[in-house]
Amino acid sequence: MTTTSDRPATLPTSGAGAAVTAKPAPRVDVAGLSEQLLGRWPEWRRYARRRATDSAFWKDESLSMAEHRERALEQMRLLASDEKHQVWLGFPERLGGRDAPGANLAGFEELVVADPSLQIKAGVQWGLFASAILHLGTPEQQDRLLPGAMDLSVPGAFAMTEIGHGSDVASVATTATYDPQTEEFVIHTPFRAAWKEFLGNAAVHATAATVFAQLITNGVNHGVHCFYVPVRDPETMEFLPGISGHDDGLKGGLRGVDNGRLAFDQVRVPRTDLLARYGAVAADGTYSSPIDSPGRRFFTMLGSLVQGRVSLDGAASTASKLGLAIAVRYGAERRQFTSSSPVEETVLLDYATHRRRLFPRIAETYATHFAHDRLLDLFDDVFSGEKDTPEQREDLETMAAALKATSTTFVLDTLQECRVACGGAGFITENRITSLHHDLDVYATFEGDNTVLLQLVAKRLVGDYAKHLKGTTSSPAGIARFVVDQATDAALHRTGLRRFGQAIADAGDPRRAAGHLRDAETQRELLADRVATIVEDVAMALRPAQKADPVTAARIFDENQVQLVEAAKAHADLLRWSAFTEALEQISDPGTRRVMTWVRDVFGLTLIERNLAWYLINGRLSAQRARTVTSYVDRLLDRLRPHAVDLVDAWGYGPDHLRAVIASGIEAERQDEARAYYAAQRADGSAPLSEKALKKAKKQR
Amino acid sequence: MTTTSDRPATLPTSGAGAAVTAKPAPRVDVAGLSEQLLGRWPEWRRYARRRATDSAFWKDESLSMAEHRERALEQMRLLASDEKHQVWLGFPERLGGRDAPGANLAGFEELVVADPSLQIKAGVQWGLFASAILHLGTPEQQDRLLPGAMDLSVPGAFAMTEIGHGSDVASVATTATYDPQTEEFVIHTPFRAAWKEFLGNAAVHATAATVFAQLITNGVNHGVHCFYVPVRDPETMEFLPGISGHDDGLKGGLRGVDNGRLAFDQVRVPRTDLLARYGAVAADGTYSSPIDSPGRRFFTMLGSLVQGRVSLDGAASTASKLGLAIAVRYGAERRQFTSSSPVEETVLLDYATHRRRLFPRIAETYATHFAHDRLLDLFDDVFSGEKDTPEQREDLETMAAALKATSTTFVLDTLQECRVACGGAGFITENRITSLHHDLDVYATFEGDNTVLLQLVAKRLVGDYAKHLKGTTSSPAGIARFVVDQATDAALHRTGLRRFGQAIADAGDPRRAAGHLRDAETQRELLADRVATIVEDVAMALRPAQKADPVTAARIFDENQVQLVEAAKAHADLLRWSAFTEALEQISDPGTRRVMTWVRDVFGLTLIERNLAWYLINGRLSAQRARTVTSYVDRLLDRLRPHAVDLVDAWGYGPDHLRAVIASGIEAERQDEARAYYAAQRADGSAPLSEKALKKAKKQR
Repeated sequence: MTTTSDRPATLPTSGAGAAVTAKPAPRVDVAGLSEQLLGRWPEWRRYARRRATDSAFWKDESLSMAEHRERALEQMRLLASDEKHQVWLGFPERLGGRDAPGANLAGFEELVVADPSLQIKAGVQWGLFASAILHLGTPEQQDRLLPGAMDLSVPGAFAMTEIGHGSDVASVATTATYDPQTEEFVIHTPFRAAWKEFLGNAAVHATAATVFAQLITNGVNHGVHCFYVPVRDPETMEFLPGISGHDDGLKGGLRGVDNGRLAFDQVRVPRTDLLARYGAVAADGTYSSPIDSPGRRFFTMLGSLVQGRVSLDGAASTASKLGLAIAVRYGAERRQFTSSSPVEETVLLDYATHRRRLFPRIAETYATHFAHDRLLDLFDDVFSGEKDTPEQREDLETMAAALKATSTTFVLDTLQECRVACGGAGFITENRITSLHHDLDVYATFEGDNTVLLQLVAKRLVGDYAKHLKGTTSSPAGIARFVVDQATDAALHRTGLRRFGQAIADAGDPRRAAGHLRDAETQRELLADRVATIVEDVAMALRPAQKADPVTAARIFDENQVQLVEAAKAHADLLRWSAFTEALEQISDPGTRRVMTWVRDVFGLTLIERNLAWYLINGRLSAQRARTVTSYVDRLLDRLRPHAVDLVDAWGYGPDHLRAVIASGIEAERQDEARAYYAAQRADGSAPLSEKALKKAKKQR
Repeated sequence: MTTTSDRPATLPTSGAGAAVTAKPAPRVDVAGLSEQLLGRWPEWRRYARRRATDSAFWKDESLSMAEHRERALEQMRLLASDEKHQVWLGFPERLGGRDAPGANLAGFEELVVADPSLQIKAGVQWGLFASAILHLGTPEQQDRLLPGAMDLSVPGAFAMTEIGHGSDVASVATTATYDPQTEEFVIHTPFRAAWKEFLGNAAVHATAATVFAQLITNGVNHGVHCFYVPVRDPETMEFLPGISGHDDGLKGGLRGVDNGRLAFDQVRVPRTDLLARYGAVAADGTYSSPIDSPGRRFFTMLGSLVQGRVSLDGAASTASKLGLAIAVRYGAERRQFTSSSPVEETVLLDYATHRRRLFPRIAETYATHFAHDRLLDLFDDVFSGEKDTPEQREDLETMAAALKATSTTFVLDTLQECRVACGGAGFITENRITSLHHDLDVYATFEGDNTVLLQLVAKRLVGDYAKHLKGTTSSPAGIARFVVDQATDAALHRTGLRRFGQAIADAGDPRRAAGHLRDAETQRELLADRVATIVEDVAMALRPAQKADPVTAARIFDENQVQLVEAAKAHADLLRWSAFTEALEQISDPGTRRVMTWVRDVFGLTLIERNLAWYLINGRLSAQRARTVTSYVDRLLDRLRPHAVDLVDAWGYGPDHLRAVIASGIEAERQDEARAYYAAQRADGSAPLSEKALKKAKKQR
């Protein structure tokens, strides 16, 4: 198959293409799809994207670490002084914001296009440091402390993680002991493992920090709370008395972020600088909280900071788009080796292996995108106060954990594959992919290690399952319905209209499940059934742990940990698939809808292909049917070939976003030049004969 | 399961452990295993490893690109002036070398431990530039041109790759047209796509280059040949007339290598500087070659440069070891979250998910190591001249392609997993993993893109299969025997004594294959059967292409390309498994042998697990049996837990090789400090009560 244009008017004549040539070839309405992908706050996303084309915000690869850090800070000052104050969108109107948390993240995510270091350094300032004041502080504290954090007159660090404790925040060892004599808290780092670590802004720029520490008053530890602590003299930028620090120095990426450590040696802060929304200490040392249970209080505080995870999910989705757009544009032009044509070499995308490498990732990126859109909706509902219930918060946290863990792992694999798919050119910094990969690398472990997050998700699934068992029938169909509802509730919570009860009633029936793989309901059943079955199996297996001694309980848990994580992954897959399927209904253009349905099918079927052994072992697919999965995926990939460039174009990133030389059309230009040279040689008869051809001719004579 | 020591005297009491406590727990003889792993040239490997502990050769992460390039050149000068001249080992004795190609690579591979940039820049000088002179030049040319290349008085570039042609060397567009008037070749770059690209040493340091170009004389193109071309004035370092260049600048890694482009505008070189071993031009322009077929001539020339692939395979294996040794040492100390013990948190390696992430990679690294050892043997046999036959050369090239493609992909996945397994600390440059990942990234595409290499391997397999069909019976057993012989011939060619005919006769029998998974013969059968079946399927499917028109043939090929690559991967897996199994027999210590047999089983069974759907669909494993694969792997991983640190220690890399702060024991030190702090608090009664505990106590009252 040789395609000379990126978007041929008719489908290719190869296997799968030939099967559909009866119908006219569908076209993707790139502009229309692009518009749909802008989501609920199109104007803010457009605004942020336009800004990302301003070279003042671009990553400058030539800078040293120190210069890059200063540039990122300067860029943040530009953001803070921007006429629309997009970075303040999520803050209260009375302080200059717009109380628009969803719109805020929609714009914030696009910063990754300019420079991931800028995104993360800005995220530390407004998404973590200032947000801790917003969400954990009282209105008085907001009024007093937020303005400086918002306008960047107080660059801040978010001092949660300690060397000894990453994802396990409940165990941080820093103490904040109340001294009723002076009405102060004494912040203290008792040993080296309790040093606050990996804090953005801490190495150089922060003059204050929101510090998480065990609140101790009257001899009782009330658990982790957050304190506002000045750390540097804003004039001299020297550490204040009792504060010490360490520069984390070079990292695998994000060199514009000045990560560092902070330690506190009996540092005193006024009683009023405990961020007191969820827990306060009276002058005499009496502790009070609107939430009685220490456990629930802790998770409520932590949950209010979920926006970091939400925005990392969005940024990961965006970076996947950039990498794939570069690789697909290059693959559509780059030629290597002669195949069907004796003169013209084959374009990379016309190789089946190349399609296999890239196209399922295009599909998964779309799924990631649509699922993220639903996550943003849910986030906005909760944090705008529109639908802020404990259940919605819990759903939001579970969904954020599931999607962040999935997309930030996916983006790294994808960028690696894109880099390799571009050959040596992919390794050159000017082609962007390695740079994105290095910067995004840490997204997989910060704001919660992905494996830990998946376990949180799984525990929720198993817990809900246990609750469900108590309440209703435990028939296989009931369980399957419960699992699908769980994923679709989250995915569909805004439209909230559709239920899939009918289809689900059959989910336990292997014959039904082994039906037409291209049928959406079949895909849904297969995906949902897998979640339901694993959750059920794990729940059963964990049951004896409840009454066991700690050592035995730990062993039982250990034996099921890998399956727990599998359950969470399967749940995230179903969530993404459901969001994608739901989004298909919003597409009105028939051609676009048809192509996007193929894309969804590729996503659904590659998920099934990835876990094919599971479906076989558990009798959900016959060997006969399973054999067709891969060949059907291959046919779909072939069918998507003419639409590949459209599908990445619809993401809306132009040359000033991609900023990769190989994605600029230079490759086709050079080939035209080479072609013209050989044509001229043939025309004037100056082309040399080849020894090979001569030998062949001699033989034949 | 909580293990307080890294190497407990008895096995843990958890599931799998409990099952074997009847026997005494085996111990790994670390020193003995380490000795075995040194391979055939232990003294040279030790010498190179000792040198890698000298900080003069270490990568300095603080350097700018320009400084790093100069440092790497300085380090090369140290290597060239080294008293033992290890980098000259592969060159002729008459020129100061030792004609010891295998020993040379054994030492060369260890340079990656010091700094991958040094390895690659040195590889360009001695492994490519000088080796092209050695292998493609006549003895007169060797005598004249090698001394300068060897002692680094002539830093050189290896100008093969062009912008327009990476892995497809036969299509390079640079021309070398013979001018009988002046007895010179005119080297010329006809258009931009023909610029020589990504050439190490070209951006700054090279004063000469070995340039690959189409040799044209008397109007006939004799195909790609290599020319020795001076490119810079060694005094001024300015380009010579007609030469131009471009600095590739920053890359995703290897910043100490000055990659760049070179172009030639009618540059004249003397007739005698065509490296003339495989093709010469007389004064009158008459071409002659010892190899009549232009195709075979081309592949012979290229094949003589196989050492690059061999050494990349070794370097990838070494880098996997470094990453895993760091992650395992950290995972053996690092504690997170409370599990079985109320006071002590759980060590990472005691989490099932963590074992799943790292232990199968330890096993695969061992397999990679043993297979590489066999590859080095074969390489030495061919290039020392000991067993230099066309068949051996072809085997060497196929094996090098299969192993390089497998190990350089594996190392990137592994380093990514190690980085994530170390959490945020894995992202800090001082912990080394990201640095290794960035540098090794390009190994997956240079010296041949891995997908292209796997296709070469597959074509060889299919071609051999076709030859085999003509000669002998085509019974399933016959085919299986053929496939195993193919892999084991390569893996065992030195000992060359054993055949597996007996077992193979049953390979087609699913009942037999579904036997005991822990049985080595069962693993071998399952792995071999998969290669045989895929090769057979693809060979049958490709058959119609032979008589089809080019477009149809291309389509048929396209439809089978993904399976072709699968066949090559399966072949590489069998190759590695066979080498591992063979190596087990060299282990005399019973404890070590027992543990290493488990490690081999983990490798074999994870390969089967990875392709479990294939085994189910093709009736090689029953659902019942397939279900046991994963649980058996999990039990083995649990069993390996107490040996994890030993297994990475045996690779022989100490603190000065690992150079990662987190692998230095600092984590355990900090925990001891924290433990002491809490113990003192408990002792003097100053520990605060927890609100949670108080509430619980109140309830119970």
